[in-house]
Amino acid sequence: MERFELKNARYLASDVMQRLIQPGDTVVDATMGNGGDTVFLAQLVGEQGRVYAIDIQPAAMKRTKERLEAEGLIERVFFSLEGHQHLAEIVGGPVRAVMFNLGWLPGGDHICTTRTETTVEAVLQACSCLLPGGLISVCVYPGHEEGMRELEAVTQFCRNLPVRTYTVLQHRFINAKAETPQLFLIQKNA
Amino acid sequence: MERFELKNARYLASDVMQRLIQPGDTVVDATMGNGGDTVFLAQLVGEQGRVYAIDIQPAAMKRTKERLEAEGLIERVFFSLEGHQHLAEIVGGPVRAVMFNLGWLPGGDHICTTRTETTVEAVLQACSCLLPGGLISVCVYPGHEEGMRELEAVTQFCRNLPVRTYTVLQHRFINAKAETPQLFLIQKNA
Repeated sequence: MERFELKNARYLASDVMQRLIQPGDTVVDATMGNGGDTVFLAQLVGEQGRVYAIDIQPAAMKRTKERLEAEGLIERVFFSLEGHQHLAEIVGGPVRAVMFNLGWLPGGDHICTTRTETTVEAVLQACSCLLPGGLISVCVYPGHEEGMRELEAVTQFCRNLPVRTYTVLQHRFINAKAETPQLFLIQKNA
Repeated sequence: MERFELKNARYLASDVMQRLIQPGDTVVDATMGNGGDTVFLAQLVGEQGRVYAIDIQPAAMKRTKERLEAEGLIERVFFSLEGHQHLAEIVGGPVRAVMFNLGWLPGGDHICTTRTETTVEAVLQACSCLLPGGLISVCVYPGHEEGMRELEAVTQFCRNLPVRTYTVLQHRFINAKAETPQLFLIQKNA
């Protein structure tokens, strides 16, 4: 058996999702990027499950589709090129989990990054879509200016979530550099 | 299969220890209290493992011994009534894990609480005893004055740990009351 190891925010998010999501679930990758999380989620939800994969960048969707096809998982995924601030409308119903991995499209040109205002709106919409016991993970990258703004805004947003309805846990690697990614988990109380 | 649920700091600490500790390990309960963690750790280390259980209160040791005897686990535990600021000397060798659950002896008279200076010294000594990959959990209770001081001191101590040697993760339930317990995990890099 492998022993527990503290890795990074991204890893912690995957770890929790793996323990939460079960076959047949409906879940959301709110920042498709190069599709890593989409593939991961498509594996977890099984044949009867559904993944909504959202990104405004056609290049992201193209790469993700290629990966999913290679893995034989594409039938489980519904794609949207709308902004994730329209998440509630895109998914149109309750979901078990939503993953946000903020910042740039990996390998992209660093012009297209998630933006604070739309990010916060998207997380708010994700909250409104959660099933009881459902979970949102938000990885924030304060290593660039917009990422620092996102960190402040997400922190503030999370602080204001009503504790009767949501349990919110912030993870900080506090002896690391200030730009080290942080993870927020938002769970709707069952 | 039970789905992942965000609970409290104490639960997160147990959850991680369960995924880290394996039979045969040597581990430490640095705040024996009523023995809950000692019993938990004694189960995890198995017959070949060893738990060092530390508390300056004879009442804590008495209760803990009773619980361990009832569970048939007492042979796995070495007891010390010395202060946990002498942790390195008490254990005298490398350990896989150390649990700290700060504050009062549960059910006690609320006169005897852990103290900031000795707590920080104890965590420092615990760091010095860790095997590579070994882990310290520290649950802090800022709901009373000394607990608030402990939170500040532990936070500061953790911030200063060298990132090459230790990975340190702070867990905060950020939409809950300020006195909500926090968890610090300190892992020695493998």
